[in-house]
Amino acid sequence: MQQTFRLVIDCPDQVGLVAAVSQFLAGHNATIVEASHHTDLQTGRFFMRHEIRADSLPLSLEAFRSVFSPLAEQYQMNWRLTDSHRKQKVALLASHESHCLIDLLHRWHTNELYCDIPCIIANHPHMQQFADWYNVPFHWVDFQTLGKEKAFEEIQNLLHHYQADLTVLARFMQILPNQLCEALAGKAINIHHSFLPSFAGAKPYQQAYDRGVKLIGATCHYVTSDLDEGPIIEQEVMRISHSDSAADMVRKGKNCEKQALANGVRYHLEDRVIIHQHKTVVFA
Amino acid sequence: MQQTFRLVIDCPDQVGLVAAVSQFLAGHNATIVEASHHTDLQTGRFFMRHEIRADSLPLSLEAFRSVFSPLAEQYQMNWRLTDSHRKQKVALLASHESHCLIDLLHRWHTNELYCDIPCIIANHPHMQQFADWYNVPFHWVDFQTLGKEKAFEEIQNLLHHYQADLTVLARFMQILPNQLCEALAGKAINIHHSFLPSFAGAKPYQQAYDRGVKLIGATCHYVTSDLDEGPIIEQEVMRISHSDSAADMVRKGKNCEKQALANGVRYHLEDRVIIHQHKTVVFA
Amino acid sequence: MQQTFRLVIDCPDQVGLVAAVSQFLAGHNATIVEASHHTDLQTGRFFMRHEIRADSLPLSLEAFRSVFSPLAEQYQMNWRLTDSHRKQKVALLASHESHCLIDLLHRWHTNELYCDIPCIIANHPHMQQFADWYNVPFHWVDFQTLGKEKAFEEIQNLLHHYQADLTVLARFMQILPNQLCEALAGKAINIHHSFLPSFAGAKPYQQAYDRGVKLIGATCHYVTSDLDEGPIIEQEVMRISHSDSAADMVRKGKNCEKQALANGVRYHLEDRVIIHQHKTVVFA
Amino acid sequence: MQQTFRLVIDCPDQVGLVAAVSQFLAGHNATIVEASHHTDLQTGRFFMRHEIRADSLPLSLEAFRSVFSPLAEQYQMNWRLTDSHRKQKVALLASHESHCLIDLLHRWHTNELYCDIPCIIANHPHMQQFADWYNVPFHWVDFQTLGKEKAFEEIQNLLHHYQADLTVLARFMQILPNQLCEALAGKAINIHHSFLPSFAGAKPYQQAYDRGVKLIGATCHYVTSDLDEGPIIEQEVMRISHSDSAADMVRKGKNCEKQALANGVRYHLEDRVIIHQHKTVVFA
Repeated sequence: MQQTFRLVIDCPDQVGLVAAVSQFLAGHNATIVEASHHTDLQTGRFFMRHEIRADSLPLSLEAFRSVFSPLAEQYQMNWRLTDSHRKQKVALLASHESHCLIDLLHRWHTNELYCDIPCIIANHPHMQQFADWYNVPFHWVDFQTLGKEKAFEEIQNLLHHYQADLTVLARFMQILPNQLCEALAGKAINIHHSFLPSFAGAKPYQQAYDRGVKLIGATCHYVTSDLDEGPIIEQEVMRISHSDSAADMVRKGKNCEKQALANGVRYHLEDRVIIHQHKTVVFA
Repeated sequence: MQQTFRLVIDCPDQVGLVAAVSQFLAGHNATIVEASHHTDLQTGRFFMRHEIRADSLPLSLEAFRSVFSPLAEQYQMNWRLTDSHRKQKVALLASHESHCLIDLLHRWHTNELYCDIPCIIANHPHMQQFADWYNVPFHWVDFQTLGKEKAFEEIQNLLHHYQADLTVLARFMQILPNQLCEALAGKAINIHHSFLPSFAGAKPYQQAYDRGVKLIGATCHYVTSDLDEGPIIEQEVMRISHSDSAADMVRKGKNCEKQALANGVRYHLEDRVIIHQHKTVVFA
Repeated sequence: MQQTFRLVIDCPDQVGLVAAVSQFLAGHNATIVEASHHTDLQTGRFFMRHEIRADSLPLSLEAFRSVFSPLAEQYQMNWRLTDSHRKQKVALLASHESHCLIDLLHRWHTNELYCDIPCIIANHPHMQQFADWYNVPFHWVDFQTLGKEKAFEEIQNLLHHYQADLTVLARFMQILPNQLCEALAGKAINIHHSFLPSFAGAKPYQQAYDRGVKLIGATCHYVTSDLDEGPIIEQEVMRISHSDSAADMVRKGKNCEKQALANGVRYHLEDRVIIHQHKTVVFA
Repeated sequence: MQQTFRLVIDCPDQVGLVAAVSQFLAGHNATIVEASHHTDLQTGRFFMRHEIRADSLPLSLEAFRSVFSPLAEQYQMNWRLTDSHRKQKVALLASHESHCLIDLLHRWHTNELYCDIPCIIANHPHMQQFADWYNVPFHWVDFQTLGKEKAFEEIQNLLHHYQADLTVLARFMQILPNQLCEALAGKAINIHHSFLPSFAGAKPYQQAYDRGVKLIGATCHYVTSDLDEGPIIEQEVMRISHSDSAADMVRKGKNCEKQALANGVRYHLEDRVIIHQHKTVVFA
């Protein structure tokens, strides 16, 4: 994989902004591999992502950051500059359903997801097996013995210990306490098994069955303390019919869940997502 | 179009039921063009639809009905027998958006929808033009002058006058009074411009924009007195992104609306829909 | 509709290119509403589209063109600058199927397609009716009486007479002669009723039925002298099953055709398409 | 999983056929869980599948077969009666791409695919690892050392040894010799990484990239000696754009491949597929 630097910016929209940034880049001889812009006309906010060949720059990442800083300040930018070769540490949380976990592990193992997976944490011990296959440290957090509060303390300690950059709830079926949601703001991704805002909360497939919808889906979103209300990154749907039982929907919906979650995680890892208020800009 | 009779049945599931019906049909030498079955295992209800070549039967529709009647009684069937050549009368209701109206008119005009359209009723006078093109009687019901109650009285009178078998709300933006909903139970179809149950109520595209979903859609459902809660016949969705404004969604969503509504109406006209409690079986 | 100027560029990729263009724009105080970039890494070609608020510029379109010209030359740009308020003239060609024609006319009539429709030309006289409804001049070109060569001469004369900027083959079932294809290069759009390259040529739905595919579709592409081989702008597909006859496919596929064609035409009218060799870049 | 017997029939369409079968079933007190019918009006062939609760029958599978036999003969049926509890033996063939293999293994491991997997055969040794995880016997067939002829002989011996009911080519990149195709007729399923008939043959994603299509897909079909021409069971597609490189398509397309193959295999295992000439009826 060619090394790139990713410059991701959001700031108030202003004339001259793109010129200033692209002049800066040209001034350092940057070869731009991919560039995406978006102006939110309603809020007057501007979003921009550049992917730049690292070997076209005469600067290190650090040096780039420091010379770019004054420009960023001038335009009141919220910005980050990241290195595509730096692997983010992604901690996986799971419960008893393995499909999303196994899917992410395989995509990681085959380099579709470029990251490190420092640990898998689950509230069911039988997930150990999958962790062992992929040679990833496994931690069973026993919610029943510990109680919810202590259990989440342990999870938070583990995330801290492994220095997780991103936490992925791969069908983790415990509701995170507010304090943890806040600590992980913008750094925790969940998959909900419905096309939100339809069927938030428990047993969405049963809800979908009861309502008689003709489509089911899945939603990948950032975790916030408002359950199932976080900024949406990706959604998938598929067609069903009256002949599908709730159990059929559970089976079929897994395909949506896996794909929405894998896309969402990849977009995040490639710095393609910018959270703005309670929504996202995704330069997919 | 080949003439067929459509036998549509729902009843408690029982051993021997299919045998009894198919024996009856074979006994009258019926050539079956299409047959669909469904057992709802949760409620123990059975659903069946047969499409039979009319010219294979030695019986008229009326005679068929009367000889089938005892069997229907024996198995406690809720049933209907219809003639594909009998055109149902479909009244169209519209407001100021014309896309669904025009779409239905064109499909009717080119025989994709096999029915009569005895009248178009609108609360905006400029819909007259489209009615004139297709040579369909037009009635402007002026809600502002008449007031809501009188206006709906007039609509109900018109539906009665034209003996409408089916009333289609083609983006008709007035909420029907409960009494009219009940009078039209199972005989009125609406299109809602979201993938219900998401974004029920007013301005669904704005709601979708505000929530930041990555999909928009449309839902075709039977009208009930619970607004946007009627049995769903068909849904369509399409992908959007952060770059779509609420206005873009309105534009794009029209494609979903047209298609979901046209499918729903066609399924109804071809006797492919059975309402069961607040859901539908659709033998599409 | 807010007036914008659209600057569409393709040229060899070079460092400093984006900076030069955006500096130019900033220097004239341009407010950029939408900006899209693409680098084809395989051919080293760069593509860019800007949509600029006209009222933010102190220049007329003409003046803009002349001051931009030297820059364009320097970077060997293939470029155009267009005014969103200038309506392109779109001639519609049809045969005996009306669904695409009517769909385009309605989208135009409701301002979803921003253009003029100076004429409808058909090789079947019954299309007159639709032209009359929308008050568009109609020309029946009688292929049987005239013969193919004379008929196409007449069509070409009509296109010339009406100064058509774009010619849309809305299910026009005659194969254009090479000479006309070349005359209309990049300015004629066709809809083919299959997901090309599958089922090129005649009777694609019958071909699809015979092959037993589980999906059907439609392809909107530029007309070239290689039949069904022109650069693809848009494709749509939908799911079918064994229970769909070739006639069902014809009916269902119309939805794909209408949507693919309408999108393709809109992208073209909004200067979102850049043809490069035998492919397209579409800034949708 | 409730035990069912599956009665799958195809035969010339005749009046009285359904009555005869359903009377037979009712006569043995069969509770029908699912019933599907299809008449191919073009060829006059009838297709029927019944799923019957085993515990509702006073007969064993064997006894059922023998009492049903005369009826089958009378109506010239091509038929099978299978037991949902009997696990079919599914041999997996792979090369160097693991995504389809891993996907099938996980679905099997979590009981989404109800079957036995007696062996994995690959022409690349590194697939061993996945076989070991799932505790499935693994055989590396070294095409380079053995040569093609000997290698396929070994594969055929292995399939025979393990008594494979079904052979799945999970991105197995060697072309089966005609003789083996014929030996496995109707019992070998392949996944091709394009929406056939587009892009048959080698490197379909590169072909798709070169043609500039806006959709890519995958096709699950039975293996025949006509390469990529076998009866299609399932197809999946997804949208792409000019910004997707051939490598992006490879990555994205894997999602289509996995889903189309998994569906195709499940339909086959559940006796939902009837091959008729070079097409399939799939009672999904």
